[in-house]
Amino acid sequence: MSTGKLNSPPRLSDYVDRERLWNRHMELGKIGATESGGVNRQALTGLDSQARKLVIEWAVTLGAEPRMDAIGNLFLRLPGTNHELQPISTGSHLDTQPGGGMFDGIYGVLAGLEVLEALAASDRRLPCALDLVIWLNEEGSRFSPATMGSGVYAGLLDLEDTLLLTDGDGVVLGDALEMMKSTLGNLEHENSPSIYDAYFEAHIEQGPVLEASHTQIGAVSGIQGLRQYEVIVSGQSAHAGTTPRSRRQDALVSAMSLINDITAAIDDSEDLVRFTVGRFEVHPGSPNTVPSKVIFNIDLRHPDDDRLEEIEKIIVQCTGRVKTCRADLQCLIRSPVTHFDEGLVRLIESAAKALEFSVKTLPSGATHDASSMARLCPTVMIFVPCRDGVSHHESEWAEPEHLWAGACVLADAIEARANETDL
Amino acid sequence: MSTGKLNSPPRLSDYVDRERLWNRHMELGKIGATESGGVNRQALTGLDSQARKLVIEWAVTLGAEPRMDAIGNLFLRLPGTNHELQPISTGSHLDTQPGGGMFDGIYGVLAGLEVLEALAASDRRLPCALDLVIWLNEEGSRFSPATMGSGVYAGLLDLEDTLLLTDGDGVVLGDALEMMKSTLGNLEHENSPSIYDAYFEAHIEQGPVLEASHTQIGAVSGIQGLRQYEVIVSGQSAHAGTTPRSRRQDALVSAMSLINDITAAIDDSEDLVRFTVGRFEVHPGSPNTVPSKVIFNIDLRHPDDDRLEEIEKIIVQCTGRVKTCRADLQCLIRSPVTHFDEGLVRLIESAAKALEFSVKTLPSGATHDASSMARLCPTVMIFVPCRDGVSHHESEWAEPEHLWAGACVLADAIEARANETDL
Repeated sequence: MSTGKLNSPPRLSDYVDRERLWNRHMELGKIGATESGGVNRQALTGLDSQARKLVIEWAVTLGAEPRMDAIGNLFLRLPGTNHELQPISTGSHLDTQPGGGMFDGIYGVLAGLEVLEALAASDRRLPCALDLVIWLNEEGSRFSPATMGSGVYAGLLDLEDTLLLTDGDGVVLGDALEMMKSTLGNLEHENSPSIYDAYFEAHIEQGPVLEASHTQIGAVSGIQGLRQYEVIVSGQSAHAGTTPRSRRQDALVSAMSLINDITAAIDDSEDLVRFTVGRFEVHPGSPNTVPSKVIFNIDLRHPDDDRLEEIEKIIVQCTGRVKTCRADLQCLIRSPVTHFDEGLVRLIESAAKALEFSVKTLPSGATHDASSMARLCPTVMIFVPCRDGVSHHESEWAEPEHLWAGACVLADAIEARANETDL
Repeated sequence: MSTGKLNSPPRLSDYVDRERLWNRHMELGKIGATESGGVNRQALTGLDSQARKLVIEWAVTLGAEPRMDAIGNLFLRLPGTNHELQPISTGSHLDTQPGGGMFDGIYGVLAGLEVLEALAASDRRLPCALDLVIWLNEEGSRFSPATMGSGVYAGLLDLEDTLLLTDGDGVVLGDALEMMKSTLGNLEHENSPSIYDAYFEAHIEQGPVLEASHTQIGAVSGIQGLRQYEVIVSGQSAHAGTTPRSRRQDALVSAMSLINDITAAIDDSEDLVRFTVGRFEVHPGSPNTVPSKVIFNIDLRHPDDDRLEEIEKIIVQCTGRVKTCRADLQCLIRSPVTHFDEGLVRLIESAAKALEFSVKTLPSGATHDASSMARLCPTVMIFVPCRDGVSHHESEWAEPEHLWAGACVLADAIEARANETDL
């Protein structure tokens, strides 16, 4: 399994086991498995606890010590040789979307676990401690917002407010968390963030770039900026049979025309702008009534904040020019571009090249816990390809060799960072 | 109140009372009155029975005999002098939309009642009997479909199937009807349709034509044809942050483009085509997910069946040309143009002109019970203006003098038809 040269000393990645890594994905995938081959394991459910319990068992066998903080982030710490050094952390999440798959989130946890396995198998110890982190509720599908655990950890969300949130059935988050804590047993609590030397997160790309270019490893330069808007177009309901076009204030016609104007005004020959209208509600929604109101959201993303600003201006201008109906625009989310640590991005590239994997630097289209962590310490992500770029879907799939390659890069990069060595 | 010339014999319309007609609209408007000034009196509710009871009382005082058929249509018959003659009928409905007003339907009943009043006040009798009809469930908002009572009466709907229908709460129509029948007392049942000499229906226009042209009376030439389609556009859900435009199968983008193509291909300089997309559902409806499916309805109406056929071809062609996503089209309703009786349309015009009311011949944009009746006997409708052409809304309003003018025309037209005289 080694890709090291014959006369070189073995790398930590030489002890990363492709089969073990794959089998653990399959084993975790059984917890919340759906009939269509996906996984439905939402945050703070019994299934989420069950998955955490299994990972804790695996990590504890390798010498890790589990702790949980007040919002339910789980830290599995492998001590280093020097207690004075700042620890390194790596991890991701175990919760899935309602119709998610076996890889999104889970891979980052299992790749980190594989680094612990490799250290144990090679009988090595890092000078600093290594925290394998399982963040609470990255998906935000049962309790909103997403990246909740890392958000509270990084001080972006208020702990007390978050504990009072409820799910669609009215279950209070704090109560669900207490259930999880009692299921997992008495784990020492830690409420102030560790001062980490670095944070690494491995993930399936959730996009088509790596697969399309036959690249094995993505060194992620950052996370694109996200702006989300709500637009309310108000017209006047009218009888579909009696009201001539010239006398209608049809909110659907105006909303479609507005979206058309915006997209026509955005110059995007590189196909880098992510402009999505995913929520689009038409009221009253009766086949024989002219719509009186349309409420829709625009999800806008781009790796460059200046470009986002330009497009926002287009959206504002077009909304102001809507005729016949009234259009009101509100910005709900304005999340700037996250730039990962340049030194760590170079480190990922070097680790991949040393292992003779093809590598490409690219931004992340999706948001991850790494975005919260980048506010606290040098942070980077490692992407591996996923089939057709599909994620958040039961057909989500990643190949064993790609998962293995990413875990190898993670292992060598962490070891190099810990030892302050070049690759 | 007379518009007759000094030396002419009094017309039946001379006995139509503007104030009585208006006051009865106000009185019926209290039954199911909403806080916003509208009426919510849906079919087969206790309020519907209460309204019917009041109209029965008024009609019985004038010598009418009430009967009800198996689907709950109510016939209030004023006998004529000659039992051999075919009776004439007039009427409409007392049920309203959930957020309806005081005039839609009710006016046709009260204008007919005013003819009975005028006959009584003038001490005249028609040679033939006159049926004032209250059709069951014209609106179709609690139990679908609309024009239910007249549909069953005309043999367009099956009685037994209709009795088994349920409302949104699971109440069986037959059970609700039994409740109404027991509330209204033992009314003789009549299950086979009468052979009428003619059917007249007065109604607010529900459109802007009369008001905009300052016309008092509409002689309705027919009801425009209606076709309703369901279109399902199927794409592929995808992550809004990671999936480039070129790789998306965005069902919303395709659906909007399809609607745009259809409307662009319809040449409608006269503004006569009624093309409405009122129901438009986007799935999964999550702000950060590319839509996988859009289901929408097209409501298409025109006074010319050939034109409807042409536009249907455009819809079929455009649907077949949809790219990226799959689009499936299904026709749900294909209801041809109803042509009212030309002789009766001329009769309404003559009656209006004799009364020195301005009159205009126009088609009806909305469907009415008269559409069912036109399948059985010579039929016509009389329209009066309504404010801003608004109907099916709590702001629905008609002026007392317009209601009075329509009732005058109705009275004189019925008398002329019964006596086979010219106006």
